[in-house]
Amino acid sequence: MIVLGLDPGYAIVGYGVIESVNGRHKMLNYGAITTPAGVAMPRRLLEIARDMRTLLDAVKPDAVAIEELFFNTNITTGIQVAQARGVILTACAERGLLPYEYSPSQVKQAVVGYGKAEKKQVMEMTRMILGLSKVPRPDDAADALAIALCHANTAGSILPAK
Amino acid sequence: MIVLGLDPGYAIVGYGVIESVNGRHKMLNYGAITTPAGVAMPRRLLEIARDMRTLLDAVKPDAVAIEELFFNTNITTGIQVAQARGVILTACAERGLLPYEYSPSQVKQAVVGYGKAEKKQVMEMTRMILGLSKVPRPDDAADALAIALCHANTAGSILPAK
Repeated sequence: MIVLGLDPGYAIVGYGVIESVNGRHKMLNYGAITTPAGVAMPRRLLEIARDMRTLLDAVKPDAVAIEELFFNTNITTGIQVAQARGVILTACAERGLLPYEYSPSQVKQAVVGYGKAEKKQVMEMTRMILGLSKVPRPDDAADALAIALCHANTAGSILPAK
Repeated sequence: MIVLGLDPGYAIVGYGVIESVNGRHKMLNYGAITTPAGVAMPRRLLEIARDMRTLLDAVKPDAVAIEELFFNTNITTGIQVAQARGVILTACAERGLLPYEYSPSQVKQAVVGYGKAEKKQVMEMTRMILGLSKVPRPDDAADALAIALCHANTAGSILPAK
């Protein structure tokens, strides 16, 4: 099973692709879709839509996993991330894919075995499970690989969110 | 100038089309894009994306005006509306249109002349300005016509938001 993990954002969308067979996980690819600051938001969103289509067509994932959105202190940023997330979900639906959603604590639980693990621990465990020599960069791509691993380890028990 | 006003949402996207010539405004069309409850959100968003393209191709607006997003008490609903708004902005950018954003108080100020006007007053003034026999339904369409009127009355002084 090929799983595409996504860490949504409007400036950076992290992605990570893994192949999971019988509980063994292999990293196939990772990276980030980026959009330039200083460009009008609708144009940045359009760029995300187009790059997401290209990514989905290249990866042809069996499943897509995406992080649930939580709002921190900055509501404006939160709204902008949610707008980008809507564009990402739409690109997936366009390709017949319904992303699975996981909360940050579900990702931590699945990867580290502890729902309140530190971000650094999640990245280090992701690196080890995938047998990589170093933690992938940018952080958004490492996060996306962790989300993909989370899905691969819990798939079957979670339904795509409404 | 043909102005398309949009009231974003994930269950209902209200739209209103007006033609403005020398400060005189005529209603051309109004209505709502709706998506069914109980369907997975990515599919609802995809439906909004497709219906928005159809709407934009039919209306061929000179300008699009959309309400700024404010969060009320319900953060979950707010995230879902923001996701739909991202899809709407993307559809506009795809057609080369950068929507103009207005806050609810800007719309009230432009239509009623008072930034803290009641919603009912805005609707009644919208009806009168456009010479309609009754307030358009649903409310989302009436709101969208008010947003279009706001842009028609203030166009030239506001730049598309980043």
